[in-house]
Amino acid sequence: MSGDFATLALALADSAAAFHRRGWMLGTSGNLSAVVSRDPLRLAITRSGVDKGALTPAQVLEVDEAGKVLRGEGKASDETSLHVEIVRKRGAGSVLHTHSVWGTILSDAHAKAGGLTLEGYEMLKGLAGVRTHAHREWLPVLANTQDYGALVNEIAGTLDRQPEAHGLMLAGHGLYTWGRDAAEAKRHVEILEFLFEVRGRLLLAGRG
Amino acid sequence: MSGDFATLALALADSAAAFHRRGWMLGTSGNLSAVVSRDPLRLAITRSGVDKGALTPAQVLEVDEAGKVLRGEGKASDETSLHVEIVRKRGAGSVLHTHSVWGTILSDAHAKAGGLTLEGYEMLKGLAGVRTHAHREWLPVLANTQDYGALVNEIAGTLDRQPEAHGLMLAGHGLYTWGRDAAEAKRHVEILEFLFEVRGRLLLAGRG
Amino acid sequence: MSGDFATLALALADSAAAFHRRGWMLGTSGNLSAVVSRDPLRLAITRSGVDKGALTPAQVLEVDEAGKVLRGEGKASDETSLHVEIVRKRGAGSVLHTHSVWGTILSDAHAKAGGLTLEGYEMLKGLAGVRTHAHREWLPVLANTQDYGALVNEIAGTLDRQPEAHGLMLAGHGLYTWGRDAAEAKRHVEILEFLFEVRGRLLLAGRG
Amino acid sequence: MSGDFATLALALADSAAAFHRRGWMLGTSGNLSAVVSRDPLRLAITRSGVDKGALTPAQVLEVDEAGKVLRGEGKASDETSLHVEIVRKRGAGSVLHTHSVWGTILSDAHAKAGGLTLEGYEMLKGLAGVRTHAHREWLPVLANTQDYGALVNEIAGTLDRQPEAHGLMLAGHGLYTWGRDAAEAKRHVEILEFLFEVRGRLLLAGRG
Repeated sequence: MSGDFATLALALADSAAAFHRRGWMLGTSGNLSAVVSRDPLRLAITRSGVDKGALTPAQVLEVDEAGKVLRGEGKASDETSLHVEIVRKRGAGSVLHTHSVWGTILSDAHAKAGGLTLEGYEMLKGLAGVRTHAHREWLPVLANTQDYGALVNEIAGTLDRQPEAHGLMLAGHGLYTWGRDAAEAKRHVEILEFLFEVRGRLLLAGRG
Repeated sequence: MSGDFATLALALADSAAAFHRRGWMLGTSGNLSAVVSRDPLRLAITRSGVDKGALTPAQVLEVDEAGKVLRGEGKASDETSLHVEIVRKRGAGSVLHTHSVWGTILSDAHAKAGGLTLEGYEMLKGLAGVRTHAHREWLPVLANTQDYGALVNEIAGTLDRQPEAHGLMLAGHGLYTWGRDAAEAKRHVEILEFLFEVRGRLLLAGRG
Repeated sequence: MSGDFATLALALADSAAAFHRRGWMLGTSGNLSAVVSRDPLRLAITRSGVDKGALTPAQVLEVDEAGKVLRGEGKASDETSLHVEIVRKRGAGSVLHTHSVWGTILSDAHAKAGGLTLEGYEMLKGLAGVRTHAHREWLPVLANTQDYGALVNEIAGTLDRQPEAHGLMLAGHGLYTWGRDAAEAKRHVEILEFLFEVRGRLLLAGRG
Repeated sequence: MSGDFATLALALADSAAAFHRRGWMLGTSGNLSAVVSRDPLRLAITRSGVDKGALTPAQVLEVDEAGKVLRGEGKASDETSLHVEIVRKRGAGSVLHTHSVWGTILSDAHAKAGGLTLEGYEMLKGLAGVRTHAHREWLPVLANTQDYGALVNEIAGTLDRQPEAHGLMLAGHGLYTWGRDAAEAKRHVEILEFLFEVRGRLLLAGRG
């Protein structure tokens, strides 16, 4: 659930390149983290304002739980506090945040309802602990805001109320998901983004 | 119709990378096999739970007809029995299983009807033995289940009743197709996934 | 307008890989040719039945105007006679034939009308000799058939009646386009496939 | 805001390859520039008529403010005067022009209204100086024309009236955007093209 900084930085840079290629992290959007140590809490996290299509391991920073940079140059992402909160609440080893076209459309459409249900898809079995396509995944959608302090509290409350959720969305913004380690978190991104495309296409066809 | 294990493992790893790139095998979804020998029956098959975007030949296992691992480390896919059944019923040299967005949408939409007809497309000539676009391909769609024993029987019955079918779908899940060898099976995936996109787009536009 | 066989074979293999990557030539679909010499007429043309995602220059054949293989192993494409006819009628140096999802949908939808008009797009300026987006391109759509003799005659008549056309489509099948050389023909594929996607999306939205 | 010619030529060639891969610069469409020096004004700009999928740094020219070629072989793009005008009016260090499917559809649909508003998307924060998703971006859409003299005047007037705009569109043609340097301009392309896809999909679904 934690690991060598250099290995984690490389894994995050690989994921950034892969997500950028799929259009899930265009421009400087999104941010990726992994736990270096738990006590004290140290995260490897992508630097703020970096082009995700050209992110190198040297642009991954090590930060403490307050977002203070301990290794590397530049500023940590403004959303570092959200990553820290998810690591704490879920015991996650990695937190990944993507911005996709379908995630944007779907989160906007389900913002009023506060979330959406994903159910009946074999692909759900790619989520940790899920054993059947009959699984019912409730994915919370929170309103977007630039007030990260308030958002951390919102996310904390949501994670408490929805202990089974494998991810959450911010409306018009994108997906946060996590996993035991960087590989599991990456798998969760692929699973959930796949299902966003399925559901987004159905929604726009009036079948969702 | 069968071949050297190392060559087959490399071909399956190449196909996994190609299908992952197209979004037909995201996360750990899908599994791929090829026949190493027929008597006794030995399959090269992708290991369970492996990220298909980074699958290496070393993650391809050799298994017997009961799914027992004879070469390589890890567990064979839960769906090994489905591969074995298709190899037996069709004399296939390779069985490939993909999960695409359009396959998911289309199989769900046609689950009640038990299948869909593909007809009038030049692309159909890419299926083994098909000589004209006027060919009428009935693609069975079976209900999805986690009871693989029952599913093996369902598939066996379907293949008996539809001796001409080049593939079958599981609803909300994806495509199984096969071929004389790994190259023909890969071609069948490309042909059928292409036609799923054509028909899926027409369906969502109310023209399918 | 003609060239060294090895150079042309390499250019065609590069185009096959590029078109396969975009999903315009999946499986064994499509075929590509370029003129080696005009008198006597010799074409470099992709071998029949080859996976277009892995086509090598060694799989490009040299054929005469009757489709007889003069260099390389294997059979020339069944559609060689169509390439020869277009080379003759248009003085083309290269003829390229792709099968895309949007080309399939659009050609089926416009088959009854016998063609479609592309007009008002800046992208049209990428077609040889076109100087303004106000250009009106009529793209003939012919019925698909497996009778290549009849189809050659249909194409010849169409090219005579539509001397300005930069390409033509076969319904449910795909695009034929051509150019002075392999590079211009490739550019025409990209331009026309781009416009097929624009028009196909509008069509399925009820705006086309 | 300006830089070494060889470095800029390489950056523009890299962007051309990346945009071509995404289908935003097919055929010979689009053109890219960056400022080499401001006084006198010198631009690095992509050569006219070059395949954007294979553009090399050697196909980037150095031109003066009148479009006269000072370094490299071939003709500068016809649209050089538009790049020069944007550099002057905005003090931009790089101007990028792409042709995408969604940009084509969206610019046509909003041509009558003279522009479109992008608002409420987190992705907007990728635009220089934007601090919140609540930002309201008005993107002007001008009629397309082959009269570049008139178009330069139109663009100049538009930039004066809309000093906050980060880009503008030509109807049925594509996007012009810019930035302090080649990296920022590239980021703006990715942000705006992402939002075009979001809005284009909503539009065609009758939700835009």
